[in-house]
Amino acid sequence: MVNGYAGRILHVDLTEGKTWVEEPAEEFYRRYLGGNGFVAYYLLKELPKGADPLGPENVLIFATGTITGIPVAGAGRSCVGAKAPLTGGYGEADVGGFFGAELKRAGFDAIVVRGRAPKPVYLWIHEGEVELRPAEHLWGTKTHECQEAIQEELGDSRVRLAMIGPAGEKLVRFACVINDLRHAAGRTGLGAVMGSKNLKAVAARGKGQVPVADPEGLRELARWMRENWKEKAGELYELGTDGGLLGLSEIGALPTRNFQDGQFEGAEKITGTTMRDTILIGREGCFACPIRCKRVVKVEDEYQVDPIYGGPEYETVASFSSNCGIDDLKAIAKAHELCNAYGLDTISTGMAVSFAMECFENGLLTLEDTGGLELRFGNAQAMVELTRQICEREGLGDLLAEGPLAAARKIGSGAERYVLHVKGQPFPMHECRTRHGQALGYAVSPTGADHMHNFWDGSMAKEPLPESLRSLGVYQSVPQTELNYHKVRAYTYVTNWQWLHNHLGHCMFIPWSREQIVQLVRAITGWETNMWELFKVAERGVTMARVFNLREGLGRRDDVLPERVATPFVTKTVNEKPVPPEVLDEHVSIFYGMMGWDPETGVPTGPRLQELDIAWVQEQLEA
Amino acid sequence: MVNGYAGRILHVDLTEGKTWVEEPAEEFYRRYLGGNGFVAYYLLKELPKGADPLGPENVLIFATGTITGIPVAGAGRSCVGAKAPLTGGYGEADVGGFFGAELKRAGFDAIVVRGRAPKPVYLWIHEGEVELRPAEHLWGTKTHECQEAIQEELGDSRVRLAMIGPAGEKLVRFACVINDLRHAAGRTGLGAVMGSKNLKAVAARGKGQVPVADPEGLRELARWMRENWKEKAGELYELGTDGGLLGLSEIGALPTRNFQDGQFEGAEKITGTTMRDTILIGREGCFACPIRCKRVVKVEDEYQVDPIYGGPEYETVASFSSNCGIDDLKAIAKAHELCNAYGLDTISTGMAVSFAMECFENGLLTLEDTGGLELRFGNAQAMVELTRQICEREGLGDLLAEGPLAAARKIGSGAERYVLHVKGQPFPMHECRTRHGQALGYAVSPTGADHMHNFWDGSMAKEPLPESLRSLGVYQSVPQTELNYHKVRAYTYVTNWQWLHNHLGHCMFIPWSREQIVQLVRAITGWETNMWELFKVAERGVTMARVFNLREGLGRRDDVLPERVATPFVTKTVNEKPVPPEVLDEHVSIFYGMMGWDPETGVPTGPRLQELDIAWVQEQLEA
Repeated sequence: MVNGYAGRILHVDLTEGKTWVEEPAEEFYRRYLGGNGFVAYYLLKELPKGADPLGPENVLIFATGTITGIPVAGAGRSCVGAKAPLTGGYGEADVGGFFGAELKRAGFDAIVVRGRAPKPVYLWIHEGEVELRPAEHLWGTKTHECQEAIQEELGDSRVRLAMIGPAGEKLVRFACVINDLRHAAGRTGLGAVMGSKNLKAVAARGKGQVPVADPEGLRELARWMRENWKEKAGELYELGTDGGLLGLSEIGALPTRNFQDGQFEGAEKITGTTMRDTILIGREGCFACPIRCKRVVKVEDEYQVDPIYGGPEYETVASFSSNCGIDDLKAIAKAHELCNAYGLDTISTGMAVSFAMECFENGLLTLEDTGGLELRFGNAQAMVELTRQICEREGLGDLLAEGPLAAARKIGSGAERYVLHVKGQPFPMHECRTRHGQALGYAVSPTGADHMHNFWDGSMAKEPLPESLRSLGVYQSVPQTELNYHKVRAYTYVTNWQWLHNHLGHCMFIPWSREQIVQLVRAITGWETNMWELFKVAERGVTMARVFNLREGLGRRDDVLPERVATPFVTKTVNEKPVPPEVLDEHVSIFYGMMGWDPETGVPTGPRLQELDIAWVQEQLEA
Repeated sequence: MVNGYAGRILHVDLTEGKTWVEEPAEEFYRRYLGGNGFVAYYLLKELPKGADPLGPENVLIFATGTITGIPVAGAGRSCVGAKAPLTGGYGEADVGGFFGAELKRAGFDAIVVRGRAPKPVYLWIHEGEVELRPAEHLWGTKTHECQEAIQEELGDSRVRLAMIGPAGEKLVRFACVINDLRHAAGRTGLGAVMGSKNLKAVAARGKGQVPVADPEGLRELARWMRENWKEKAGELYELGTDGGLLGLSEIGALPTRNFQDGQFEGAEKITGTTMRDTILIGREGCFACPIRCKRVVKVEDEYQVDPIYGGPEYETVASFSSNCGIDDLKAIAKAHELCNAYGLDTISTGMAVSFAMECFENGLLTLEDTGGLELRFGNAQAMVELTRQICEREGLGDLLAEGPLAAARKIGSGAERYVLHVKGQPFPMHECRTRHGQALGYAVSPTGADHMHNFWDGSMAKEPLPESLRSLGVYQSVPQTELNYHKVRAYTYVTNWQWLHNHLGHCMFIPWSREQIVQLVRAITGWETNMWELFKVAERGVTMARVFNLREGLGRRDDVLPERVATPFVTKTVNEKPVPPEVLDEHVSIFYGMMGWDPETGVPTGPRLQELDIAWVQEQLEA
């Protein structure tokens, strides 16, 4: 502990009702930083190979990052990880809000949870103290009720919560973890893991400040952001992440009717400007963030949307609207509210609905199957109702709650062709036939198709390339609908840096340059770190996640895309270009090789594991 | 050319007597920077596979780097490259002084020379103009005569020269290129390449300033160095590079009697302090350098050493003294003067002498072979005389002029066991049995055993590790006499950064931090570059050199060490630990793998070449 930067990890065994504290050496922090680094580390160390994601052997990790909880823009993020109920592989989702910062201020960098409580419990962490408390009385509550009850019980309305709603309790395979009612660790089904463990919530409260090695350096960075965020990210405040929806539709990148098309005729009705001018009543941010890209919406007519649950982000809007052929913002707001109240991933839920709609339109699901719902694209009421059914595991919703891929296998008749997914996880809201770097990203992301581990081809198509790419050693422009090794290089470097954001608990929307992020880490830790060292941490994290997947049986045959990606849009050609499987495959190999993994199998080589200082995972590969 | 940082490359065809100018795009500079980057690029592009190093097809490159010629400490270096007469592989040597800076100020970043002049010529470059001038009248001159004649002829005493002496003309396989009489591009035999091309010298004169994108940023860095160099590198001024000799002997790292031992009983008589107190008459630096680590010595008794040739550095002192069992600084100064006047690499010359001494002591060479010289370890006069014979290719010197390995093969009777070399290039003056990282470095350096592409194990043995290693992601101490994958990691990163110094034309003795070097490159080029991008340039350069060697037939079987390294010291055990071939071999594989090369063959993988943006060299591998 040369510079003394180190903290505490909380361990919990729910079966035994025990907790204990680990105080790792500084090297541990420097090697893994936090976020995915911690998730991958503890999954590889603690989870028995082949464990059932919904069994007591699964290991659930709540992890902050280096920047989480530091009073500077972007420090509001943390992540949740486990073996994923939705994919059977590496499960991780990151999330904004306030819980992560509160957990750190309460004295812990991460929580590692094992076992299964005999009866529902919640975990209460305050000022370094830890308590497992009964939660039978909370079981079945929606998130708002749960939060109110716990805050009242603990006598502190500033307690921050990571919790599940009824969907997690009912083990919906794409249930999420909800922080502070409005922030979701959405993907891969981690809410079901909490449910399977009888863990209703983690409550945190800390009044301390997170220590910082160089407070003046930090203040200077914070000052810069105060003076510059409006110019660089003011649009995000004004319109939220949904601000770009119309533009995406124009270039054919907006998923429409279950990815049959890339342009949506109703896009103008659902884009950020329309939301601002209709249902928006407020804007919110995460911990310490001036940008406040999060929306608060209210609807008072037939849908009755409670603003306590915030409002939909772009991914949520698109999955319930264009993706379902719907242009009714109020219905979308309702579906969003249901998901946050019950604890469901909005992306996977919208994709489950659109999958069912396409099945229905093609006769694979009948009115009998849907309980009378006219499940056609464009039917807003049916979408909201089916969302509710998934939340409650009612009727068709019970089938879809196993995930669209599992549902398709039950439905049969080739329904699988309507599931846009990788490794069982539905596509997020980015049409990859108009941006081929994303196609690669969907295929190789360790969590399955994921917008958080991906690449936006746009900047790479520019001529000249922006300095942000050139300074990564990428000097060659490539069109959006092309995949070549130059693009794989950029994909590899850029997504590795995105992993780093996660390791740091840092939001990628904050307009820090990479240099400034290095400066932030220096100011916080006192290390003389640099971009090279931080990139190595990210390569380490991605490689550990890969090793975890390989160990759990996910390999090259799972790094593939559904056949729809190899076909053109159905209704109207825009500027999409199908991605043939053999083209994808060739570039998956190149990606493996560039990562220092075997180009055929994607297995990291022994020397690469040593180079990344994670030789200890070799035995996991051999297991 | 986004930021406009780009320059001019001079091409010369000596056979045709033609010159022309190439103006590469900015990307070329950003991908390869300079130095080894240019050498490797042009060797791969221009040299026909299998070309004779001493034939007209060899390509000779003089290359500056990004920092060369900028008015800031450390900017005095440049390099020379070609297919090496001594190894048959990648030939490169870097050099300080003033020639590189002058070349750049005269308008060129590099010179690429092909063919063979029908009669001796020299190249005259001034203010962007180029002229090939006759040099028959200079043929046979020592470097000082040559310099005086050319400066007089051109009417400018400030003309700077890179030239050869009689040794290069006579194709001594370890002849060097001498800049400004006192600075040698010493290793791999590049002086012989100049000789084979009938190119006596390159003369440069430029009055312009090298343009700088951010002069204020540069001034600030220069100011920092002015204020800090004494504290950080004052010892180098005071005692020169020889200042550490006594310390090396104490830890058993001083090559003694042809690497039979690691401690020399006469070390005190030859260390920097003694030099200062006896024969030193001045200190000199390279272009823009405040540290002035170079020595100027004068001897007036029997050896008559002319101070015009400067004085010996550590490598020179050790190779002619402890390595030959000699403790007479005056004799060493004489050998040094001879080498600079005739243009010989002092390291290889000293090693040729010590090899012959061991042969003599073991009866493989007789008084008849030596022309009556009592060639025993410790015989200073014999050492000076044999050095002169090598310079003139007289007697035994003519045999040794082919390099100790070729000489040993002619001598027979197992003389090869007395040649401490890798790929035919003799060891520099660092005993690797007490520092195992160096052993690996000798084995895998593309130029053969080389102190410029190596690793100093000392800092890695410290506990805690210095931040300079920690900030490369190396957190694990390793004893000096141990080789494990942690050390291979550090070796790989540290020597890659050393290659970068060469690409930049920057001296590794200057106490800039890595961050400051990034800042220097930013200030000069205007690029928003960073440590990551610069490391990638270095990885690219090392990998290109590897590909060149593979193409020319040097592969894994050449990445080995002589058997003496696997045995203990002869006279007195210190703290050396032999390096068994199988241990070395294992770690060579790890190094290959860490570099993204096939761990068995050391052939860079296709995806790795793509990742480094040098996919174009793939065809060289297949050739």
